[in-house]
Amino acid sequence: MVYPGAKHSRFHHALGAMHLTQKAVETLRAKNVEISEEEKNGVLCAILLHDIGHGPFSHTLEHSIIENLYHERISLYLMEMLNREFSGELDLAIRIFKGEYERKFLTQLVSSQLDMDRLDYLKRDSFFTGVVEGNINPDRIISTLNVKDDQLVVDSKGIYSIEKYLAARMFMYWQVYNHRTSFSAEVLLTQAMRRAKELSRNGEKLFATDAFGYFLQNEVKENLKDQLGQFIQLDDSDVWASLKQWQNHEDIILSCLSGCLINRKLPVSKILNEPLSAEELNVLTNKTAGELGVEDGSYFVHQSSVKVIPYDKHKSPVYIMNKDRSLQEISESALQILSHHLLIPIEKFHLCYLDVKKNM
Amino acid sequence: MVYPGAKHSRFHHALGAMHLTQKAVETLRAKNVEISEEEKNGVLCAILLHDIGHGPFSHTLEHSIIENLYHERISLYLMEMLNREFSGELDLAIRIFKGEYERKFLTQLVSSQLDMDRLDYLKRDSFFTGVVEGNINPDRIISTLNVKDDQLVVDSKGIYSIEKYLAARMFMYWQVYNHRTSFSAEVLLTQAMRRAKELSRNGEKLFATDAFGYFLQNEVKENLKDQLGQFIQLDDSDVWASLKQWQNHEDIILSCLSGCLINRKLPVSKILNEPLSAEELNVLTNKTAGELGVEDGSYFVHQSSVKVIPYDKHKSPVYIMNKDRSLQEISESALQILSHHLLIPIEKFHLCYLDVKKNM
Amino acid sequence: MVYPGAKHSRFHHALGAMHLTQKAVETLRAKNVEISEEEKNGVLCAILLHDIGHGPFSHTLEHSIIENLYHERISLYLMEMLNREFSGELDLAIRIFKGEYERKFLTQLVSSQLDMDRLDYLKRDSFFTGVVEGNINPDRIISTLNVKDDQLVVDSKGIYSIEKYLAARMFMYWQVYNHRTSFSAEVLLTQAMRRAKELSRNGEKLFATDAFGYFLQNEVKENLKDQLGQFIQLDDSDVWASLKQWQNHEDIILSCLSGCLINRKLPVSKILNEPLSAEELNVLTNKTAGELGVEDGSYFVHQSSVKVIPYDKHKSPVYIMNKDRSLQEISESALQILSHHLLIPIEKFHLCYLDVKKNM
Amino acid sequence: MVYPGAKHSRFHHALGAMHLTQKAVETLRAKNVEISEEEKNGVLCAILLHDIGHGPFSHTLEHSIIENLYHERISLYLMEMLNREFSGELDLAIRIFKGEYERKFLTQLVSSQLDMDRLDYLKRDSFFTGVVEGNINPDRIISTLNVKDDQLVVDSKGIYSIEKYLAARMFMYWQVYNHRTSFSAEVLLTQAMRRAKELSRNGEKLFATDAFGYFLQNEVKENLKDQLGQFIQLDDSDVWASLKQWQNHEDIILSCLSGCLINRKLPVSKILNEPLSAEELNVLTNKTAGELGVEDGSYFVHQSSVKVIPYDKHKSPVYIMNKDRSLQEISESALQILSHHLLIPIEKFHLCYLDVKKNM
Repeated sequence: MVYPGAKHSRFHHALGAMHLTQKAVETLRAKNVEISEEEKNGVLCAILLHDIGHGPFSHTLEHSIIENLYHERISLYLMEMLNREFSGELDLAIRIFKGEYERKFLTQLVSSQLDMDRLDYLKRDSFFTGVVEGNINPDRIISTLNVKDDQLVVDSKGIYSIEKYLAARMFMYWQVYNHRTSFSAEVLLTQAMRRAKELSRNGEKLFATDAFGYFLQNEVKENLKDQLGQFIQLDDSDVWASLKQWQNHEDIILSCLSGCLINRKLPVSKILNEPLSAEELNVLTNKTAGELGVEDGSYFVHQSSVKVIPYDKHKSPVYIMNKDRSLQEISESALQILSHHLLIPIEKFHLCYLDVKKNM
Repeated sequence: MVYPGAKHSRFHHALGAMHLTQKAVETLRAKNVEISEEEKNGVLCAILLHDIGHGPFSHTLEHSIIENLYHERISLYLMEMLNREFSGELDLAIRIFKGEYERKFLTQLVSSQLDMDRLDYLKRDSFFTGVVEGNINPDRIISTLNVKDDQLVVDSKGIYSIEKYLAARMFMYWQVYNHRTSFSAEVLLTQAMRRAKELSRNGEKLFATDAFGYFLQNEVKENLKDQLGQFIQLDDSDVWASLKQWQNHEDIILSCLSGCLINRKLPVSKILNEPLSAEELNVLTNKTAGELGVEDGSYFVHQSSVKVIPYDKHKSPVYIMNKDRSLQEISESALQILSHHLLIPIEKFHLCYLDVKKNM
Repeated sequence: MVYPGAKHSRFHHALGAMHLTQKAVETLRAKNVEISEEEKNGVLCAILLHDIGHGPFSHTLEHSIIENLYHERISLYLMEMLNREFSGELDLAIRIFKGEYERKFLTQLVSSQLDMDRLDYLKRDSFFTGVVEGNINPDRIISTLNVKDDQLVVDSKGIYSIEKYLAARMFMYWQVYNHRTSFSAEVLLTQAMRRAKELSRNGEKLFATDAFGYFLQNEVKENLKDQLGQFIQLDDSDVWASLKQWQNHEDIILSCLSGCLINRKLPVSKILNEPLSAEELNVLTNKTAGELGVEDGSYFVHQSSVKVIPYDKHKSPVYIMNKDRSLQEISESALQILSHHLLIPIEKFHLCYLDVKKNM
Repeated sequence: MVYPGAKHSRFHHALGAMHLTQKAVETLRAKNVEISEEEKNGVLCAILLHDIGHGPFSHTLEHSIIENLYHERISLYLMEMLNREFSGELDLAIRIFKGEYERKFLTQLVSSQLDMDRLDYLKRDSFFTGVVEGNINPDRIISTLNVKDDQLVVDSKGIYSIEKYLAARMFMYWQVYNHRTSFSAEVLLTQAMRRAKELSRNGEKLFATDAFGYFLQNEVKENLKDQLGQFIQLDDSDVWASLKQWQNHEDIILSCLSGCLINRKLPVSKILNEPLSAEELNVLTNKTAGELGVEDGSYFVHQSSVKVIPYDKHKSPVYIMNKDRSLQEISESALQILSHHLLIPIEKFHLCYLDVKKNM
């Protein structure tokens, strides 16, 4: 919706992250970190499958199609399903994925500040969007990785590569992941899904493939296990084809949300340093409802906080290993020139609302 | 289906071809070829819109969704529709597109051996597939273009760039465009469409968006003009969502074709130097029908000729302009080192059939 | 000596910077900044020639071959010489180069925080060294340039490109321009030159081309104008061929310095947060002199301060132009996320000394 | 002299070719070709050192500085010298280099139609000249290599990569290696060297470093072994510094040749389909001598034949290995679409002569 070049897929990302993990394993072995063939296969399977639980439109619909589950949990269910099919061959992959394996660096390759997941998606997203401020060099970063006491660390010569990576990640957040225009499209999509579910659960039979229709009508209560078979039938086309059909639905809210998205008539979207008050929001919501002739304007007005911590040293610290093999957290290293500035969180606010006169 | 990186879209291609055309216009102007602003806008609009008539899955479904029309004709209808909306501002673009404008080189920038269409798609397809044998350098080729007597020609210093481009195009044909695996997926898709139309026209109500359903049920007889509104509603998701639903249809032929495609169970596919005889094909077709338990096996067995002329000097000759401004057809130039070899056509044969025991 | 890929030359840089300036002029014209053909030629000539005054080994020998002149001054002399040859055609270029032309943005394209000089060398040095932390995107930065009141400014949408560029520049300083190993080679080279001059001015006839010999024997007192003819005969090969011959000279200091450089036996080199005291330096110098058996050890021990201000807002501020055409210095903009951190200078210290036992 | 970007060095090439050889060894091992660690080290050393015998200006001065030896022979002498220093550790490398090791594919990785030497220099020369017609993909080609009966072969799926590589090599010959302008510079350099040797051997003491002076004065009679120590002192700067000094020498022939080269006043240079007759050459030579006022004009007029066989199947055949492990020479394969055209040699002629009136 914003960067037309960004047609890359999660399948590409899964392959790419696995490719980088292979390189990381080779690099660590070359630095005399012992990694057995079984451990190598385990970490490769874990990274290959780490995102397999994503449904259509990934994060955007993460809690819209299935309310109560994060995609990581769904990935885990699918890995367990595959593990049964493959007679336990994924046992170690699952332990690594869940963080239950004693050699923590293997889990850290899959999920940490310097995991292969981030290295791949930053590079890939920067390349396909053309936002060069986010460009990083995974090969270089991998070449600086090391292991001490089963923890993933960075050789001191790599400190500037890491600082550059942390800065690049911050640039991507403000220029891509939190882009105000994609935000407005996301709001349309999640609100369309919210409305479609409401209508479906009130007995309306909306146009949908069987699998998609299932999730419109049913709430996944406890866990997804029983519905996995339905869930893996879904891809973007189920949703998109429905939105196209729903444009002409008689419910104004659903047809308006769908039509705006399909025809790229996006709401007004702003990044604010200070948020609107609850009262201001209320006024805006009621005005929109009135202009559209609907009762509930909340589908068309949305505000949220956006907080970026370029480097969260408490949640996911990076350790630099000096030549004497002593460790230092990167922002406390004598060599650092940028990372202690990147500890500071930045908070802004997204506001988006439909300008009825302009859009309809 | 073959090159997972190849996620680029026709929209990218349209922008890219227009970008190259802009460069070509600037280059020619710098060589003292007079091109008015009106002509520039005309050729830019013509190239931007040249592919707008493509429907879902482009060439593959070109004659499956609408039987009797080439996409160029549909592009023309859409350009004329836009021209009415824009009060005739596309008049010149349409004349250039149709080859009715007297300065032929403008049409040749849109459609000829060296048009910006080919330069863009070869570069783009080579990049996104990773098939480096097809890599060309559009900037370099454009820098060698010139005009004599309103014909597009090539400065003699560019002769090797052109020869390399002709060879690259040949490599792309054998490695990408005629790849045996994509061929087998294309056969599945066109046969699924054929079956869906048959069923629809016999009164079956198949799952489909309204717009897609229209083309399943109705044949476009004379011309598309009245159905343009429906046609432009279509994109790949209409087709793909239907195929997903059709997997479970009770018609064995339709469900088998759809399911094989969705689940990537592709038929056997071979490139042959000699084709199978009609009789051999017949035997294979009947065997397949028997194994599937259907009456007509022709949906599952397919053979076709594939002929590539790397450089067709009669249909679309390339002229080299010597320093004295005399012209020579490239394969007759004293400088050429490859192009006279590229005149020779190569013919091979594609065979594809469902191996029922393996696939089902 | 450090990055073997870095074989790019100042000639490449001059062409590259001119190429970027062409792009900048086109970009500004497209934004309705009027630039006459004469101004365009002026700024192109100014940037093409801005570094023409560099002698062999550029900055390293900047004050070793000619003591009292910066290269910018020599560039100016050469431009004036050329201007006489070309009957005044460089008049405007020289005014722009000297900052005497009223439209300041033209001078700023040649020399400022965002000049085409820096954009070219950062990109080029990053590419050829492989230090990706310094990679920038000149095309993107240029596309954000604008002019207000004859000052070069940046459109607000480009703020992150600039912040990334400022960070990249800082990374290049610490990883390339101030690399401890190239520093040690620079010390060898300047000390060899110092010794060769001393010997020459004491009557010794050292191996050298005529032009190089001239500068070994004579000090350029007032200005270079009379010696320009000699100076432009020089390139790296004059110096390098002499160093090779000097390896076998009977003066221990000269042969040791030359031999260490030619055979890549570089001194010990360190980056320190705190400098050695004068006394410590003295001890080290005397020890080295003793081990080598020479009187003066100062040729072989060297310490200097290295101070980097990633963004010096007082010397060369960057102005962001908001959509209402108001200006803000970048570190004071509401949008900034990095530049106010980059105002802070960082100082470190280089120490280098010959380890006689190891090196000889 | 022709492509200013082409500043890459033979050192880069040696590292690059070794890097590719490492990849090739890994690829072959992954295809179950057994290669011991000792063999791996042997082939890596052989390729690293294969060009070490090149002197200043490589091929151009190959028979000018030392008359009777090819650089391969000098490489061998240096490898043997190193082997003595390293107590025989290069034994196997030398056997591989000389083609005396029984597993021929190891020698073929160093020297054959598909050796890592060619893959590296084609890619590198294409990149640094910007002549994209010569661009190849070494990684792809290496991935198709295999071994049968200790011979290097190509898996059939790689046939088009090889055909593209053969075409690329042909393009590089006509656009780079046999470029008429570099040819004219080469003629100047070799003739300057010829003249300098004549003068030196007649007792003239020319400006030169000691090592370079040695080869000007002495002919290497039997073999170079005794002079290796002198030879390895030489690099381009010895020659270039002398040429700069020789510009002002009183011998007209030497000063003219040197000055034309240093100041880039290159002779007229042409590629001809038919050569000049001996008589025509004679007339041109005498005219030039007369205009310059020298006795012997042969230093300034030069003609030679240039013959390119894009693919010499007799000297260095490429074998394609089908899936049944049978072999076919590539131009005889059923799959080939280009290589049988590339068997045909092309011969042209280079003529170069000094145009005295224009040049002096």
